[in-house]
Amino acid sequence: MSYDNDNIFAKILRGEIPSEKLYEDDETYVFMDIMPRADGHCLVIPKTPCRNMLDASDAQLAACLKTVRRMGHAVMAAFDAGGVTIQQFNEAVGGQEVFHLHYHVLPRHEGVKMRPPGKMEDMAVLKENAAKIRAALAGMA
Amino acid sequence: MSYDNDNIFAKILRGEIPSEKLYEDDETYVFMDIMPRADGHCLVIPKTPCRNMLDASDAQLAACLKTVRRMGHAVMAAFDAGGVTIQQFNEAVGGQEVFHLHYHVLPRHEGVKMRPPGKMEDMAVLKENAAKIRAALAGMA
Repeated sequence: MSYDNDNIFAKILRGEIPSEKLYEDDETYVFMDIMPRADGHCLVIPKTPCRNMLDASDAQLAACLKTVRRMGHAVMAAFDAGGVTIQQFNEAVGGQEVFHLHYHVLPRHEGVKMRPPGKMEDMAVLKENAAKIRAALAGMA
Repeated sequence: MSYDNDNIFAKILRGEIPSEKLYEDDETYVFMDIMPRADGHCLVIPKTPCRNMLDASDAQLAACLKTVRRMGHAVMAAFDAGGVTIQQFNEAVGGQEVFHLHYHVLPRHEGVKMRPPGKMEDMAVLKENAAKIRAALAGMA
């Protein structure tokens, strides 16, 4: 399986399409999932190309997981969440829809199931939730 | 939140309760999930204590993810799977049931949903599936 340079996350990294950015460092980039399964659902991706975990380098995985942990703490603080669920899908039958490695970070609350996938969030709500996460990140720094 | 030395994965690591072991290296241990949501569902854990991702060290995360990638390739080969789903739960409301960091590795097939959680696998079937994964790991070495 090969990497397609025109996948939408590659375009987001190149700034060719917009994203609601939350965080970046030298190796990773984080933005809001526009079809969130929970308020604050965000995506952590490496800045360098790989299709998914199966072809990711040790360095890409290590960098992503450091950022996933950071975002886990941030979304829990931002939404007063009691826990966080991490999902990562590999290949279409594994649940993957965009073929650039990404980790889903989902803040969770008691008694609240994840919403079904595929529903686009209202952009005003998405921006409001993003602002909460950025504030939480600033408080952690 | 603190680490409980008597959680069942700590007991598995100390050999106090049995597990269907698939792989280990200096930093990680892999065994069959006894309530698999897909044939070949296995768990990757660090050998050193941490409750979940939120208190895991960079080294624990990096070591786990290298092994998760290895097991992803192994279960895909063992079960001729087209993809693999990774799940990792943090705190009870995040879906966590055993409070030692663990990554779920689930081989996936076209049109086959993950089974509902909580059903104990027949031990003969579990051992047979474990043997397939060990054979795949041996073929990768």
